[in-house]
Amino acid sequence: MPLSRRVVAEFFGTAMLLAAVVGSGIMAEKFSNGNVAIALLANSVATGGVLLCLILALGPISGAHFNPAVSIADAVRRGSSVVECMAYIAAQVTGAIVGVLTAHAMFGLPLIFASHHVRTGPSQWFAEFVATFGLLLVIWGCVRFTSSFTAFAVAGYIVGAYWFTASTSFANPAVTIARSLSDTFAGIRPVDAPGFMLAQLLGALAATLLFNWLAPVDVSHAHDVVLPHEGEPRVA
Amino acid sequence: MPLSRRVVAEFFGTAMLLAAVVGSGIMAEKFSNGNVAIALLANSVATGGVLLCLILALGPISGAHFNPAVSIADAVRRGSSVVECMAYIAAQVTGAIVGVLTAHAMFGLPLIFASHHVRTGPSQWFAEFVATFGLLLVIWGCVRFTSSFTAFAVAGYIVGAYWFTASTSFANPAVTIARSLSDTFAGIRPVDAPGFMLAQLLGALAATLLFNWLAPVDVSHAHDVVLPHEGEPRVA
Amino acid sequence: MPLSRRVVAEFFGTAMLLAAVVGSGIMAEKFSNGNVAIALLANSVATGGVLLCLILALGPISGAHFNPAVSIADAVRRGSSVVECMAYIAAQVTGAIVGVLTAHAMFGLPLIFASHHVRTGPSQWFAEFVATFGLLLVIWGCVRFTSSFTAFAVAGYIVGAYWFTASTSFANPAVTIARSLSDTFAGIRPVDAPGFMLAQLLGALAATLLFNWLAPVDVSHAHDVVLPHEGEPRVA
Amino acid sequence: MPLSRRVVAEFFGTAMLLAAVVGSGIMAEKFSNGNVAIALLANSVATGGVLLCLILALGPISGAHFNPAVSIADAVRRGSSVVECMAYIAAQVTGAIVGVLTAHAMFGLPLIFASHHVRTGPSQWFAEFVATFGLLLVIWGCVRFTSSFTAFAVAGYIVGAYWFTASTSFANPAVTIARSLSDTFAGIRPVDAPGFMLAQLLGALAATLLFNWLAPVDVSHAHDVVLPHEGEPRVA
Repeated sequence: MPLSRRVVAEFFGTAMLLAAVVGSGIMAEKFSNGNVAIALLANSVATGGVLLCLILALGPISGAHFNPAVSIADAVRRGSSVVECMAYIAAQVTGAIVGVLTAHAMFGLPLIFASHHVRTGPSQWFAEFVATFGLLLVIWGCVRFTSSFTAFAVAGYIVGAYWFTASTSFANPAVTIARSLSDTFAGIRPVDAPGFMLAQLLGALAATLLFNWLAPVDVSHAHDVVLPHEGEPRVA
Repeated sequence: MPLSRRVVAEFFGTAMLLAAVVGSGIMAEKFSNGNVAIALLANSVATGGVLLCLILALGPISGAHFNPAVSIADAVRRGSSVVECMAYIAAQVTGAIVGVLTAHAMFGLPLIFASHHVRTGPSQWFAEFVATFGLLLVIWGCVRFTSSFTAFAVAGYIVGAYWFTASTSFANPAVTIARSLSDTFAGIRPVDAPGFMLAQLLGALAATLLFNWLAPVDVSHAHDVVLPHEGEPRVA
Repeated sequence: MPLSRRVVAEFFGTAMLLAAVVGSGIMAEKFSNGNVAIALLANSVATGGVLLCLILALGPISGAHFNPAVSIADAVRRGSSVVECMAYIAAQVTGAIVGVLTAHAMFGLPLIFASHHVRTGPSQWFAEFVATFGLLLVIWGCVRFTSSFTAFAVAGYIVGAYWFTASTSFANPAVTIARSLSDTFAGIRPVDAPGFMLAQLLGALAATLLFNWLAPVDVSHAHDVVLPHEGEPRVA
Repeated sequence: MPLSRRVVAEFFGTAMLLAAVVGSGIMAEKFSNGNVAIALLANSVATGGVLLCLILALGPISGAHFNPAVSIADAVRRGSSVVECMAYIAAQVTGAIVGVLTAHAMFGLPLIFASHHVRTGPSQWFAEFVATFGLLLVIWGCVRFTSSFTAFAVAGYIVGAYWFTASTSFANPAVTIARSLSDTFAGIRPVDAPGFMLAQLLGALAATLLFNWLAPVDVSHAHDVVLPHEGEPRVA
């Protein structure tokens, strides 16, 4: 699968993901009569459903990272090259921003408006560390042994992590950048984004180191394991 | 599998789908004390559950399109003939209407009453374009590589799309026609239906063109890939 | 697998199912502050989760009918003998009653108290016909081609059917008898039970006849197809 | 797979599980405006999602017990040695406590504060007996025949059991100890913990005895059946 197609798949996948995260947040807040738990329940279930289908549909093409923390961790493990990693990140960030614009256009809102949603402080940063640590732990665990079910595991994780992390689990630097451009339910102040992104990268690194000890992968097979997208079915 | 059986499967599948969409909307609105988010959560989860089981049960017989946008896109890709496509659409539209009648009969409502639910304007049309683009992207992605899980992917997508598209994701011309005959939670004014249907077809076409470039299928195998219903189990 | 073990599996499975249906109804009504939609959402999701795990765990032993309508339809199709069918029904009915007693004991209620919940009239009976027709359509569709996923399909169906049928989809004569003994959220007046049960059997019969034409099974293999419980794994 | 790695996997898995149970309970109570049913719905769905991903990710390494009742029942069945069982329990209890500390730190609460949530009496103990009986019935059923889907079955069971058992289904002695250290939605008074744990062990024992009769396993293969974690994929 040539890099051009994989990058386009990352672009569309991340765009759909952000349209889902931001769009379902707008719809949920609009109709929940001020009950934030109902809004977050809708937001989390909608995000989980969309993650499930995007990973199943695009995973065989690009690996369905949709997340610079995943692409960087994969490169650190030598699952992909620096060039691949940079191309993926560029596609993810632009895709994420286009996804936010799409959500705003669907709901008749200004296309971009900086968020005023305050999300900062040590507890929030620790929550993002935990959120991304858990996400990478799930991904590395599944790609080694149960890769047919990675889509279900990641969707299940995110549904849970919206609730159990105090930060509602952004766990994704591209998502964080894009959500800073939306003054809606899912937004984050631009000034708060760097702290989230640093915590996310540290969490991803910690989980990757842990798994390298817990269940090491033969490096010569790393590419196939992490990116089972060479055209063969993912389900054995 | 003869066309007659496939068409009957499309008829019953689309009828059950519409009974589920409209019936769960009636039940949800009735009991949610005016909290529309709770009603939509029930409506979306119920629709997802029913889509999952219908695709698993009838997919091996007819391919489980239940949607003229899917059948037309499939014919454009030469996965099925024009005759098959027209027979499928006829079954889907009549099935959808029977499904709405069934829902109304179960809840003791008039069998047909035109909807007054206004759903129109550029934002709504763009939302339907996005909704159907995403649905076809998921379907084409899954049928190529992970077809055992298509039912889960489509169900997950629809649960999400009810929330993240401003139009609650009709994404289906037969569903649009049938819902114009129901003045309930899930309805749409008959005069608004054509705009929705045009946007849906454009979205389906865009996703099909994208996927033809992203991951082309050998045309000689297209029939098997799109419609894995020749009697063999779908799960390898 | 000897009949004695299969019957015990049906007994425990149906008991767990009823404990789940009635128990989650009690819990949901207690905590939902009068919002019936929230109660029904909890009740439906809890029932779906328990159906999923019971079919996966006990299906390989007994076929996981847990439902006289399924056992009778199976016998009509010659998938099982009259003796097997009667033994299954006896286990299902006694299991269902024990399940209701279990739910009441867990919540500190009287063990048995006849329900006053009115559920009668043509719309309700038609709803039960549709509910059981749909359930059997899903079961017959899955056992023929996608039997690994039957548990997911049935769970998805019931989550949806709680919402889209006006009767909240009992769809099971043993469940109907047992729920007449519980004056809680999930109850039904004893005098209303026979109408429900007749509608259920007619719905099951209609779906069975439809599927015998739609996708006939070689009778000599019927036993294996319907009851894949001879000790071999269900997942290929 | 050496015991050291399996024990570390049990530690992290149980820690993530408890962070999810307690953290989602805090978030849910905070935002549900006093509607306990909405809080419990969020708490149960979040716990189910996290259980699904943890069992898929770590099951191939340690068997994903995360529960002394499971490890003890496994040792009773000679699926693991007494030394393995004790090491697992130590990892589970310390992991569970670390998970509770993690949840508290993410939400800016005191790291440990004894719960005042009263959960005692015969109905509650009976509920815990039923909850753990059902959990082990599901596990033993799945590991024998449908082990690819154990993660889905356990997640589905717990979502249901939060609702249908009057005790909200702790069903896990390590979870019980850890939740006694959290004065939040998910807490339990330390003085009430022993009664819960005794009921849990009796329920686990009863289900194990039942299944040994219902579907006996060849003891020489017991290790592989219960702990399919020797490095081979879990999905055939």
